[in-house]
Parts: sequence; C-alpha cells; structure tokens
Amino acid sequence: MAQETERKFLVTNDDWRIMAPPVHYIQGYLTTDPERTIRIRIAGNRGYLTLKGKVESFTRPEFEYEIPVSDARELMNLSVTQAVEKFRSKIPYEGKIWEVDEFIGANEGLIIAEIELESEDENFELPPWIGEEVTGNTHYFNSYLARNPFSKW
Amino acid sequence: MAQETERKFLVTNDDWRIMAPPVHYIQGYLTTDPERTIRIRIAGNRGYLTLKGKVESFTRPEFEYEIPVSDARELMNLSVTQAVEKFRSKIPYEGKIWEVDEFIGANEGLIIAEIELESEDENFELPPWIGEEVTGNTHYFNSYLARNPFSKW
Repeated sequence: MAQETERKFLVTNDDWRIMAPPVHYIQGYLTTDPERTIRIRIAGNRGYLTLKGKVESFTRPEFEYEIPVSDARELMNLSVTQAVEKFRSKIPYEGKIWEVDEFIGANEGLIIAEIELESEDENFELPPWIGEEVTGNTHYFNSYLARNPFSKW
Repeated sequence: MAQETERKFLVTNDDWRIMAPPVHYIQGYLTTDPERTIRIRIAGNRGYLTLKGKVESFTRPEFEYEIPVSDARELMNLSVTQAVEKFRSKIPYEGKIWEVDEFIGANEGLIIAEIELESEDENFELPPWIGEEVTGNTHYFNSYLARNPFSKW
C-alpha cells in the first residue's frame, strides 16, 4: 500500500506540450464507490489494477498492481462505466514531475495537471501554465468523469 | 484470465478429514455484484486479489493476482461485507483435487466441497463423503455467505 497525496489543477495554456511525449491511457471502473474505487487502466501497452480508499484531505490509500495487458483488456469489459481516455504527459518542473492529462472522447476539452507529494504540507513551485486548483473537487475525479463526461457539463 | 469451471457439493460425513492439513482462509469483498465480484483473500500467510465475472452455466471468468499479505490485510478494511472464515483442505481423489471448505464464525456448520474441471462435460468420480450438488445455487457463493451467513438461514 501507498498513501497517495496529490494536488490537482486546471491548465491554462499549451506551453507544457513540448516537454514530454504523451502516452495513451484508457481506463474503466469496476466500482466508483468513493470509499473503494477499483480502476482498470491500460497505459500504453501495460495493464494495471488499482484500488483506492476514501480521500481524507489530499490523501487517499492506494494499492496498484501491474497485471497482464490482455487481462486488463478483458476486465475493461466488466466496467460499470464508460471508458475514460486521455493522453498523459509527464512534465519535469523544479525537481518535481507534473502529470498532465489531456482528455479525449467524451471528456475532450479538459486538461488537468497533477502533482504527487511526499506529504500534505510539502512546498512546490507552480509552472506558469498552471491554473485554478481543483484538488478534492470530486467532479475532476476520473471515476466521476467516467459517469459524467465533461462534454455534458 | 482463466475460465473457472467448477461444481460444488455438500459434504455428508467426516471421512475426508484425515486426508490433508487444513489452511486458514479469511476473505472479504469489495463488491458482491455478481457480474464483477471482487474478493480479497488471505490464505495462510499469502494474499490474493480475485475478480470474477458473471457465472454462465458452471463457468465464470476469473482473474486472480497474488498481492503482498500486508496489502491484503489493509484491503480487508475496505470490504463491504463481514469476513468469511474457513479452513480449506485439498483432498486428492481419483486423479482430481477436491477443495473442502469447513466454515467457521458466522457460517459455522457449513461444509462445501468443490472440484475444478477442465470443461463443463468432464467426467469425474464422486468420493463417498459427497452429498447434494449445489453448483450454481447462489446461496452457496462465498460472497452470498458474507452477507447472509449460514447461522441466519
């Protein structure tokens, strides 16, 4: 188990794009119960099964296991949600890595940047392309977007 | 992924007991949705995460992953059910292995024997201690017993 401590922001411009190659992600959910979300993810050619407990402040228990990508493809068929598709770019900035997710499909138009922290009070620098903070806003959970895509907001 | 094809029976007497040492199992469920059951299991000192799809006839898609037992213990806390506890004995008989589950705790008094088959029409010999077949009877699913223990039947 890891604790996942992360903060999440909207993105205001395209300056992050040249900094890293994007990887295609597709993910579905076997439950979207916020106390025990279960996610199937295919990231490039790798498969992952991830279980997340309840969010407390910025932190959430997370258990992630790599699984055969062929299993992940079959498990996607058991999903209770539409698939969420996006391109993820990992952008280094001032000693930290920002994960910038550019959604496609039903969530096209939404771009979110996340930073994972060692602790809730860790300081970090904001890149100039970072906008409003949306940490803890459940509408920006991928599990919420799977049920309520951005195009319907 | 594997397909899991199994048949399930009640047990009529104690003659199976001397044949193998039992292992303690404790398991909980993150969902009991029959189309995507998600089980956490601690078997002896090993942890497993298992996802099962919908039963069709005797067969059900099953994906099982070994996980650190410390993760399994923490994930048990995310369970939506009471824990199911039992001792499992693996009993060889006429070239096949029977798994005999003797439940304890809230399901004490229930003993179930299962045999896993290569295909739905595979022939096999019934040991003399085997009773009524309960294959496909959802009341004998461990996920059902987790919510509706045998002591309340």
